[in-house]
Formats: sequence, C-alpha cells, structure tokens
Amino acid sequence: MRVESYEVEVELEAEQGFADITGKVQELIAKSGMRQGIAVVFNVGSTGAVTTMEFEPGLKKDIPRALERVAPRSESYQHHLTWGDDNGAAHVRAALLGPSLAVPFSSGKLVLGTWQQIVVINFDTRRRHRRVVVQLLGE
Amino acid sequence: MRVESYEVEVELEAEQGFADITGKVQELIAKSGMRQGIAVVFNVGSTGAVTTMEFEPGLKKDIPRALERVAPRSESYQHHLTWGDDNGAAHVRAALLGPSLAVPFSSGKLVLGTWQQIVVINFDTRRRHRRVVVQLLGE
Amino acid sequence: MRVESYEVEVELEAEQGFADITGKVQELIAKSGMRQGIAVVFNVGSTGAVTTMEFEPGLKKDIPRALERVAPRSESYQHHLTWGDDNGAAHVRAALLGPSLAVPFSSGKLVLGTWQQIVVINFDTRRRHRRVVVQLLGE
Repeated sequence: MRVESYEVEVELEAEQGFADITGKVQELIAKSGMRQGIAVVFNVGSTGAVTTMEFEPGLKKDIPRALERVAPRSESYQHHLTWGDDNGAAHVRAALLGPSLAVPFSSGKLVLGTWQQIVVINFDTRRRHRRVVVQLLGE
Repeated sequence: MRVESYEVEVELEAEQGFADITGKVQELIAKSGMRQGIAVVFNVGSTGAVTTMEFEPGLKKDIPRALERVAPRSESYQHHLTWGDDNGAAHVRAALLGPSLAVPFSSGKLVLGTWQQIVVINFDTRRRHRRVVVQLLGE
Repeated sequence: MRVESYEVEVELEAEQGFADITGKVQELIAKSGMRQGIAVVFNVGSTGAVTTMEFEPGLKKDIPRALERVAPRSESYQHHLTWGDDNGAAHVRAALLGPSLAVPFSSGKLVLGTWQQIVVINFDTRRRHRRVVVQLLGE
C-alpha cells in the first residue's frame, strides 16, 4: 500500500457555486496506477464543502434553498462582528456539510452510483479559487 | 498494511428507512483478520446517507422530523422539473448528511461508543435495495 | 505505509461546547514521524460531532443558532420517551453533522486553510469528557 497526494483547482461562483470533480478524481486514480483503495477529497478553507449529489441544475437551486432555512443569508451573524465580514451564513453552512469525503475505489474505478457525483460547493459571498486536496491511499 | 473491499446489502423502507449495519461491519473486520485501521463505509446512490446515531425507535422519528424542517417533503423542488421525479427532498437530505464515514478500529474492534451505531438511511420516496461499500484499510 | 492509533481527551461545556484540537492532531503527526497520509478524527459517542470551522467566538454562537432552527432544544423528542432523557436535540444535531473527519497531511503538515480548524462539538445537555480517536494512516 502507498499514499499519493494531488491537488485539484476549481473556480467557483459566489454563494453556492458547484463544481463536479468526479472526472478529475477518476483521472488521478488512473494516473496513480492504484486499483483498490480510497480517495480522500478535502476542501481547503472554511467556507466550502464537499459532498456527493446528482449533479443536475435543479438540485443546484434546491440545496441552497434548504440551507437558506438553516442559515439565512441576511441574518445578522456574530461572526460579522468579529471580523466585519459578511459571510457568516457561508461559514455555518460549510461547517454543517463538512470539508471532507472518503470515496472507495475498486478495480481502478470510484464506487459511485450512476447519478452520484463528487461535488465541491463554495458558500462564500465572493467568487473563490479553491484548492481541493485529493489523497489516494491504496495499492 | 493492506486494503480489502466488501459490500453490505440492505433493504430499506421508503422515506427514512434506517438500518444498523454495525454488526456487519464488525464481522467484516473479523473476517479480514486486521487488528488496526479504518472502515470506510460508503452509500452507493444519491438519495441515501451514512452516519452514526443511537439506534433506537424514538430517534428514527426525531431525525426525519428535523430534516422535514430543512427540506420538506411536499415542497416543490426544481429537481422534479428536471426529471419528473418526486424525490427532491431525498436528494437534498442525502447531500447534507453525506454518503461516507470513516470509523477507526483498534485491537480488531470498532471504536464506537456504547450507544453509537453505524446507520444507513434511505431518504428516497420508494423502498430501496442499497449497496453499501465497506473498505477496510489496516494491518 | 502503516497505521497508528491515538486518543485525544477533551473537556467540553454542555450544549455546544467547542474544542479546537488542530494543534493536538498536528503534534500526533509529528510524533508518528509520518510525512504523508490522512488523520481520521472520530468522536466516540452519539451526542458529539467533528467538523472544521474558523475557530472564533462569533461562530460558536452562530452555529448553535442555526442548529436550533433544525432541532430546537425545547421540542418534545420521541427519544425522551424511550429513555426519559432530555437530550433529543443533541442526538439529532450530532447525527446530522457526523462523528468523523478525514484530513490529509503532506510534508508532515495538515493541509488545512489558515482559518480552518479541526473542532469537536458537544451537543449534550451536560458537560462531557470526550474521547476523540485520531488514527493516522500514512508513511
């Protein structure tokens, strides 16, 4: 067994910019030559998150609408008092979803469902260039 | 160190069917002969999730009630317009909880708390047969 | 590659006690001598969770306020009927956030953002001494 570190870079729109990075993670597995193991996908930064979803335009509207019920954009956040920031909702949403995902692969392929993609979400109030670390552990 | 891939199959009721798979994951660790490592538990498909909880009947009602506040079942979802589906709430709930969990084991035993079980949840509007991939990394 | 198991112990205030354990996890990586791999951080128990956030006082109020919308403290939970407990909200919140996180490290350092810390949260209605298992897999 061995471990290999890669980085994927994505440009993400402000306030719920989504990027499907499944293809890139799959390419890295191919490049590593590993057949069996896990891909740990980690969003660097505290206003973004990683999850899986069916990557289609409807859900890209539905997920933000649900999160608006939990952490409304226009709420007055204590976080704003600390830094004069305006992205309290982004921080709360990112902490709830979490920055990290471990996805198994077998025979060199991610074990995802047909309509299940690995997605990075930017909750921040400004467009962000995000570094996503992809660490492969396997053989 | 080595990696071993297994699959657990579960039949889950529609709209918040829960299955406790702790015993099955523990059996796979015993079968692998590994003493120390992690079990990555991954739900294949975008309308189910994996988490830990105290597996008792009360919480199986409390968790769906909380999720109903975030992503109500009867809401009109954009996802429904994309496919003519009726399971937008299921997709949103699954993306928020996440499909994956990494649970350490030590001396051949999962390090869970006494009242903490590994649970697969089906949010879909129909009964589902779910494949849960269990990947063991350890020695 | 090899695996090493450690435990971090934290004292956490009742109902959203937060502890930043980033420094402790970083020390364990140094102690292990590993340069590249993942740290799996796992909260033992079903009323606590692990995530990343910017660890500052404002967000420690904002995150509980958002969770109060999802799983209000004073709600009557079915879980209370099962055990005569009063911590149904804690169980629901912990199941939604999840107990586990996999954080990559490279050149001996966690790949976190500058304002991104590894945080354990206690949702329980009483002060808790929590065991957090840190499993390092790497080389």
